Formats: sequence, C-alpha cells, structure tokens
Amino acid sequence: MEKNDIKDLGEFGLIKHLTKDIPLVNKSTLKGVGDDCAVLKFDDDKEVLVTTDLLLEGVHFDLTYVPLKHLGYKSAMVNLSDVYAMGGMPKQITVSIGLSQRFTVDDMEEFYAGLRLACEAHGVDIVGGDTTSSLTGLMISITCIGEVERGKAIYRSGAKPTDLVCVSGNLGAAYLGLQLLEREKEIFYSQKPDANGQQPTDFQPDFAGREYLLERQLKPEARRDIILKLREAGIQPTAMMDISDGLSSELLHICEESQCGCRVYEEHIPLDYQTASQAEDFNMNVTTCALNGGEDYELLFTVPLADKEKIEQMEDVKMIGYITSAEDGKVLITRDGAQFDIKAQGWNPLKE
Amino acid sequence: MEKNDIKDLGEFGLIKHLTKDIPLVNKSTLKGVGDDCAVLKFDDDKEVLVTTDLLLEGVHFDLTYVPLKHLGYKSAMVNLSDVYAMGGMPKQITVSIGLSQRFTVDDMEEFYAGLRLACEAHGVDIVGGDTTSSLTGLMISITCIGEVERGKAIYRSGAKPTDLVCVSGNLGAAYLGLQLLEREKEIFYSQKPDANGQQPTDFQPDFAGREYLLERQLKPEARRDIILKLREAGIQPTAMMDISDGLSSELLHICEESQCGCRVYEEHIPLDYQTASQAEDFNMNVTTCALNGGEDYELLFTVPLADKEKIEQMEDVKMIGYITSAEDGKVLITRDGAQFDIKAQGWNPLKE
Repeated sequence: MEKNDIKDLGEFGLIKHLTKDIPLVNKSTLKGVGDDCAVLKFDDDKEVLVTTDLLLEGVHFDLTYVPLKHLGYKSAMVNLSDVYAMGGMPKQITVSIGLSQRFTVDDMEEFYAGLRLACEAHGVDIVGGDTTSSLTGLMISITCIGEVERGKAIYRSGAKPTDLVCVSGNLGAAYLGLQLLEREKEIFYSQKPDANGQQPTDFQPDFAGREYLLERQLKPEARRDIILKLREAGIQPTAMMDISDGLSSELLHICEESQCGCRVYEEHIPLDYQTASQAEDFNMNVTTCALNGGEDYELLFTVPLADKEKIEQMEDVKMIGYITSAEDGKVLITRDGAQFDIKAQGWNPLKE
Repeated sequence: MEKNDIKDLGEFGLIKHLTKDIPLVNKSTLKGVGDDCAVLKFDDDKEVLVTTDLLLEGVHFDLTYVPLKHLGYKSAMVNLSDVYAMGGMPKQITVSIGLSQRFTVDDMEEFYAGLRLACEAHGVDIVGGDTTSSLTGLMISITCIGEVERGKAIYRSGAKPTDLVCVSGNLGAAYLGLQLLEREKEIFYSQKPDANGQQPTDFQPDFAGREYLLERQLKPEARRDIILKLREAGIQPTAMMDISDGLSSELLHICEESQCGCRVYEEHIPLDYQTASQAEDFNMNVTTCALNGGEDYELLFTVPLADKEKIEQMEDVKMIGYITSAEDGKVLITRDGAQFDIKAQGWNPLKE
C-alpha cells in the first residue's frame, strides 16, 4: 500500500482530513475545530476543569512496541483521568501534534482512530488543535476540559484524620506490562541480524498468560465508572487524585496538600494475580511495583469514616488504610507488622 | 555564574519553583497550578474560548537569535492573539515545556519571565502545565482560555457582501525582521573561526534603523487595544481572525468560511516606513511581504458598511477593501489598476 504524504495535504488539510467527520456530542460545545478558538458554554451551576499533558517519543512512549492507535487512545485517556480525579466529567479535548517526516497520513489516521475511540467511550468532543512538522520524532500535547458541579471539585487538600484511604482497581500491572515489553524488545534486538543487517521478521514476542499486564500498559482505562458509582452512592470524597506516578508519590501529595499523615497496609493494596506472578518471575517485590510503578490511572481517594459501609459494598474499590495527623508521619505497615516511612521513589524492603 | 541543574529540582520542583509566587488576578480562576486540574468558573453570560499552539525549536524559533525571555513573551502572545481574534478576553493559560539537558533552571526562569510579562500586561493567569525532559531541543505547548459575552464570539464565517475589510496596525514588518535576523546569522557563521574553531565573539549584528522590524518579529503585541476600541465604538465585526500566516491566507479563510469573495486594494494595505525601506534593500516586493509574510498578529476583520464612519475615525485601523459575493472571486487591485486572484502563498507580481 502506498503511504500518503502529509506534504500533499499541508497543515490545514491534515487537520481538516482528520477531524472532518467527527460529530460533536456535548451541548457545551458551541464550535469545535475550524476557527481561531473553540467556543464552549457551561451551565451556571458548573465549574470548568482544565488539564494538560505533553507526551514525547523516546521519553514517554516507544513506538517500537506501542501501536499508534494505542498511543492515541492512551494520550486521551491520561488526560481524561485527570478530570475524573477532580470528580468531574471530561467534555472537550484539544490535540496538538508535532511529527517528523517519517510519519504518513495513514499513521495519523491510526493515531486519531485511537483518540476517537477513547473520546467516544467517554463522551468527549475533539474541539481543536495544531499539527506541525518536527525535526525528530513524535510529540503530542493534549488539553482536556471538563465540568463538575459547583463547589464539588475534589482537591488533593481535603483529607482529614480518620478519613479512609481508598484505591480503585489494582496496582502495579501497568509497570510490569512495561517491563515485559522492554524485555521482549531487548530479546528482539539481541537476535542475529540477517545478511542485510535487518532483524529477523518472524520474531514472536512471548506474552502468553500476561495479556492483562500488556493491556494495562498499552490501553489504560480512566475510571469514569468509579466517579459515577461514588455519585450514585452519595459519597463526596474529601481528597482525590489519579495514580499516574505510583501510589507512594500520590499518597505523599495528598498528605502534603492536606497537611496530614497516613497509615497504609501492605496486605490491603489491591494486586492482580498476573501482577504478583510476573513480579515473582522477574524476581521483583510486587509491593514495590504497586507503590512505585505508576501509569495505573486508578483513583486514590479519601472518604469520611462514616462512609465505611458504603465503600465496603462498592465493587472494585479497596480501603488500604486511613488518614492520621501530620505528626504521625506517612507510614506503610508491612504484612509482618513492620513500619516503613513512605517515600516517593524506592521504598524497597529488599534495600532496608 | 554557575548554572542551576534542573535535575536537582525534578519535575514537580521545577513547576513549583517557576510558578510559586505568581498571583492569580481573575475571579474566574478558582484554583491554578497544583492539583490534577485547574478549576475555573465563568459567569453565566459568558462563553468560553479555547485555543492551543505548539512551538518547536528549529521549526518555529531559532535560539541562535531569539532570547528565551522574548520566546516566552511571544509564546504567550500568539495564543492571546487567537482569543482576541474571536472578540474575547484571554483569562488563563497552561504551559507545557519539553526541554533537553542543555537547558538550565536559569534558562527556564528567563522563559517564564517573558511569559509572565505578557500575562501581566493582558491580565492572564498561568493556571497549569507540565514540564518534561526531551531528547532534543525545546518544545512549548500553550493553551489559552478566554471569555466573551454570550452570542458575541466573532467567527470567520459571518462576513457579508458590502462589508468593509479592515486591518489593524501594519503588515510585513515581522517577516522582514525575520529576514534581517537570518541575514545577520549567516554573516556571523560565515566569519572565519578562530584557532579553537570558535566563531569570533565580538561580532555585532547591524540592525541600525531597523529596530522596529526586529521588535515586530521578536516581541509581537496581541491587539487587545483594538478589541476594546471596537467595543467602545459599539462595532460588532461580522468576521475576524488574527494575521499569523499572512494577509492572503487569512482573507481566503474568511471568504471560504463566509462563502463570499473580496476586493482588496494594494494601495490601502498598511505598511510601516521601515518595512518598505527594508524590502527595497532586500530587493523584495513589499506588497508580497505584507500579503504572505505572516507573524504580524494584527487583526483582520469585516464590519457592516454602516460602520464606515466609525472605522474611519478609529486610530490604527485601515479599510483595505470590501466583501463581494462568491462569484466575484477574491481579488487584489494593484496600484496600477491590474487585478490578481489572491492566492494563499506566493502572489508575486514579479512572477506574473
């Protein structure tokens, strides 16, 4: 198949081509792509949420093993996740892309297919952006705009002593998925090149029984469902963030912003079977992976003690500890009852 | 002076360091930097405007001759200009930066100094962003959020036959400023290196009498003043955009979106004396520079014929022609009365 050249379309042509048949679904979107600005209108009982992320090839993603469609999906998802982490609903995104000459129109269609899949699943309009040539590699900048009921935005700063610390889903899987992809990449490149210096094309990476870990790394899901469940249960979390840098780092952020401490129990940190099993294969401590791995895009939040029963009945949410006063420190209680200070990077019982 | 290493601060530390003492001035800004999202609240009689731009080293700017402070200023300004181009007022920006190891904390402080200068002059809050390492060079992604009275956003699509075509300021200067900087850069690099292979350090570029052209290229001003004057005069333009890609290109956008044609007169296109004089020095056609040069960040707009007298009394605004029906085409009338079709790139009487 001949690859379409982006030069034939030009910058305006490419944006038009990629966005031309995208329907707008939100009533807050008055005007999407095609003017100097997008124009939005939010109801008077809403506050507006804004978040932005910059993703760079070679730093945040490796196109050796990340398909462009997955990259588009994940690029949107990490931004939507930040809006959910405020208790809000994402409504619009703008997408800026810098791309070098090795990318074709087909490549950008793949990227947009993933982006649109994520946006459709979450009811989000693509309302603007910018495409430009870059000297090297692919760079993606996405801004997401969302809304939340007036006065209901959930900040990092609202946690109070005795609040319960909760986590959605399970942790550490995305990190181990990345390690698996990196391992197979190394095996691939360590194979003998053929007479033309090319790597063999029949290489089949071995991910059997580890599909869940790959999916967590390549196709993370922002937890819209948890926000809806919390609303339905009438629970207003006191503090919330999404877990993008690892549980340890996010716990420290909430404690710092809320001027409090926490006690978190290793035995309660939710883990998937594949995560535990893969950590063992890699001879890694699975708790370390869960605490410091990152990219899980689960929600970490605190709720008043009075909501304990409601939380216990909630599917896919686990209580992992509680908030204390600042003097009591930020503490992890291990399975054997030992206490460790939580550190942003590298709490590691193997090192202690 | 020893340069501060960004690694010592880390990503969170750098954002904190750069944004820590920035006061928030808008009542629509409830929460700026420091949580998963910024939180904004716009009055019910306002619509929200969103625009975004990606600027890449080596593609959009050359740090050989662009100081980082100017780059910060211009990066903000090009986004503010898009909000003014909708008839709105910019209120918030988010700033994402990817930077390679050659940049220091001091460099980022310079960049932010320029950014803040622009934001302070236009009453804009810096409410969020992202900093990350890049493998090569500097990349900047800015999103600007603004507001406009409900129903008063000025689109590209509202121009009607007999409307007057107006331009603020003057055109072509930014383009000639760039040519000057490029010329001096070439002279610099063509000089004999010293014994150590270094370029001479006593090189003084020659910009005497051309300061205005450099300023237009390095420190463009978004035309807030024109928007305020139009409001004061009670003029609601029927269509508007900012001139970032050149007058020709923007005229074609308005005509296409408004499904109309235009007649524009070469003799009425506003030019500064330095622009005309420098074009002559370079043996370039000054009208070509004005039509296709770009980066002027002036406003191009159309107003009903009934507003003619008001426009005539307005300082720094010139009528350059009028809107026609689509069948009449998009036409430039030259000084000697000849007619040319306006083309996006390269209307050039030297070539005809």
